[in-house]
Amino acid sequence: MHDLPALIQKSLQGDKRSTARLISLIERADPAAPFILEQIYPHTGNAYTIGITGPPGAGKSTLVDRLVQAFCGQQYSVGVIAVDPASPFTGGALLGDRVRMKHDRGDRDCFFRSMSAGKAMGGLAGATQDAARVLEASGRQIILIETVGVGQSELDVAKATDTVLVVLTPESGDSVQMMKAGLLEIADVYAINKSDRPGADSLSRALQVMLDRKTMAGGTPCWRPPICLTSASLGQGLPELYGCIWNHHDHLRKTSALEERRKSRLQAELQQKIEAELARVVREKILGEIEAAGWLEELWARKIDPLTAARRIVAAGFAETTGSK
Amino acid sequence: MHDLPALIQKSLQGDKRSTARLISLIERADPAAPFILEQIYPHTGNAYTIGITGPPGAGKSTLVDRLVQAFCGQQYSVGVIAVDPASPFTGGALLGDRVRMKHDRGDRDCFFRSMSAGKAMGGLAGATQDAARVLEASGRQIILIETVGVGQSELDVAKATDTVLVVLTPESGDSVQMMKAGLLEIADVYAINKSDRPGADSLSRALQVMLDRKTMAGGTPCWRPPICLTSASLGQGLPELYGCIWNHHDHLRKTSALEERRKSRLQAELQQKIEAELARVVREKILGEIEAAGWLEELWARKIDPLTAARRIVAAGFAETTGSK
Repeated sequence: MHDLPALIQKSLQGDKRSTARLISLIERADPAAPFILEQIYPHTGNAYTIGITGPPGAGKSTLVDRLVQAFCGQQYSVGVIAVDPASPFTGGALLGDRVRMKHDRGDRDCFFRSMSAGKAMGGLAGATQDAARVLEASGRQIILIETVGVGQSELDVAKATDTVLVVLTPESGDSVQMMKAGLLEIADVYAINKSDRPGADSLSRALQVMLDRKTMAGGTPCWRPPICLTSASLGQGLPELYGCIWNHHDHLRKTSALEERRKSRLQAELQQKIEAELARVVREKILGEIEAAGWLEELWARKIDPLTAARRIVAAGFAETTGSK
Repeated sequence: MHDLPALIQKSLQGDKRSTARLISLIERADPAAPFILEQIYPHTGNAYTIGITGPPGAGKSTLVDRLVQAFCGQQYSVGVIAVDPASPFTGGALLGDRVRMKHDRGDRDCFFRSMSAGKAMGGLAGATQDAARVLEASGRQIILIETVGVGQSELDVAKATDTVLVVLTPESGDSVQMMKAGLLEIADVYAINKSDRPGADSLSRALQVMLDRKTMAGGTPCWRPPICLTSASLGQGLPELYGCIWNHHDHLRKTSALEERRKSRLQAELQQKIEAELARVVREKILGEIEAAGWLEELWARKIDPLTAARRIVAAGFAETTGSK
C-alpha cells in the first residue's frame, strides 16, 4: 500500500499477487479503490465474460473447472471469480474452493478468486464487476463468474456478463411450472448437469417446450438457448457445452448484440454508481441534519410516515445545497 | 380503485379482501402506494413481528403453520407474509402455499399472503415491511414473515422483525465451520426442525459451542438464543418453541431492546427511502442530461471510468439544481 501505482503497474503486467491485492482492496471498499479502478479502466473492455449460475448442488464448481481446462487448453488466459453465498448452507462454494485450488498452482494459466457475498461492500454485482475488471486489465482474456442462482443480487451478478450459462440437474424441477422466474429468463446456454441421473431427458424436453412457447409468444428470437446434457464429474458432454458457449459468443460478435449488451450494462452501471454516489452525499450531508431536526421522533410518534418524510428531507436537502453555494 | 379512501377504510376495519388489494397495489409500486402508506401509518407500531428464515427444505412453511395455530389458539389475530424466492428451485414456498391454504378458509383468524421476491418493486425488504404495515393496520397483532435464508436481500427481510427464528435441520451443516455467516448472526431463536432425524443432537451441541464462543468473545450478552428441537410434521417440540419465542418477546419488552430495535429499523428505513427518493430524482432529472452530454460514449471509449463519471455527474447535478432555482 506504500506504493499503489507500482502495485497497479505490476498487476497490469500480469503479476498474480498484485492482482489479488488490488481485488482485496476493492472488495472491502478501501479508500484506494476509486483510484485503482480509474487507473485500470482504460485497460478493459475486451475480455469475454461468462456467468455460471444455477441452484445449489448443481455441480457448478466442477463444471467451471472443466471449462477452465478447456479454455486453458486453447491457450486462453483465464480468470475465475466465485461468489460465496451469503448463507453457508448452500455448500457448493466451500467444497469448490478446495477442488479448484489444484488448478491454481501454476500448472495452468488460471487466476482463481472467491468473493464473499456477505463481505462485498456497496453491492455484490458492483464488486464482482470491478474485480473482473482488475482481472481483465491484468491480461485475463476469459473471465468466468460463478454464483448460486438463488436470490436477486446473486442473479444480478450472473446477468452482468456476455454469456450466461444456467446449470441445472435432473432434480432441479420436475415441472416447467416451477421454473417461472429468474434463472430461466437470463439463460443464454443451458447445461443439464449430472445428466447420467434419471430425469435429464424429461427436463430437457420441458425446457424445449418452454423455449418453443417463448418463440411463439415473442416472434422469432435471434438466439435460442441450446440445451447441453453434461456430466462434469464423468467428463461427458463437455466439448458440446464448450462449443455452445463459443457459438453464443460468435453470435454476439456477428450481430451487434455484444456491443448493445455491453453498452446497456455500462449505462446500468453508471446509473447505479450515480445512485450510490448520491446515497453517499446523503449520508454525509443530510443524515446529521435528520437527527438534529428530530425526524426520527416524528416517525416514532406516527406523526409522519417514512416515505413522506424521505421526500421532504430530499426536497429540503436540494434546497439547502442551493442555499449553501 | 375508484374509491381508494373507502378501500383503506374497509381494510382498517379488518376486511380481508380490501387488505389483499392494498398489498397488491403496494407490491407492484402503484402510484397510489404512497397515499395508502401515509393513511395507514398512524395505525401501526404495535404488532409483534417474527421473521422465520433458514435454508430451503428446512420445513419453514409447516413450522409457520404450527405457530399460526398456536397464536390463533390464544386468540391472537395473525398475519403471514411468505416471500417466494426469486428462483423457483428452492421449492418450499410453492408447496407451502398449498399446505397453508386450508388455514385461510375462515376457520381461524389468519391472513396469509405470499409475495414474489422477483416481482417486488423497489426492494424486497421495503415491500415486505410495507405489506406488514397494511396487515398491522388492519388489526393483525402478530405478523410472521417467512423467507428463505439464502441471499442477502432475503436475509434482510428476516432481519427487519422483532424476533428472528432461524430454522435448521440436522442436514443443514455437519460442522460449525460451515455456519460462518449470515443466518447465524441474525438468530434470536433456533429451531432444529426434523429433529427426529439423525444428527439433531450434534448440530445442537455445535450451535451451543458456537454460542459459548460468542459469549466469551463479546462479554455477557443480554440474550442467548435458545435452541429448540422440533418436528413440525410430527408435532414435536412446538410448545417449547412457542414458549421460546414469547420469552424473547418478553425480554425485548422488559429491557429497552424492543424500542431500540424498532427505532434503529425506522432510521434504516428512512435512510433507505431517502436514497430511493434521490435515485428517483436522478432518473427524472439527471439521466436525460447524461445522454445529451454523451457520457456513455466517453465510458465506452474508456476515456473515463464509471465511478469518476458518476461523481462528476452528481456534482454537476447538484450545481444545476442550484442554478435552476
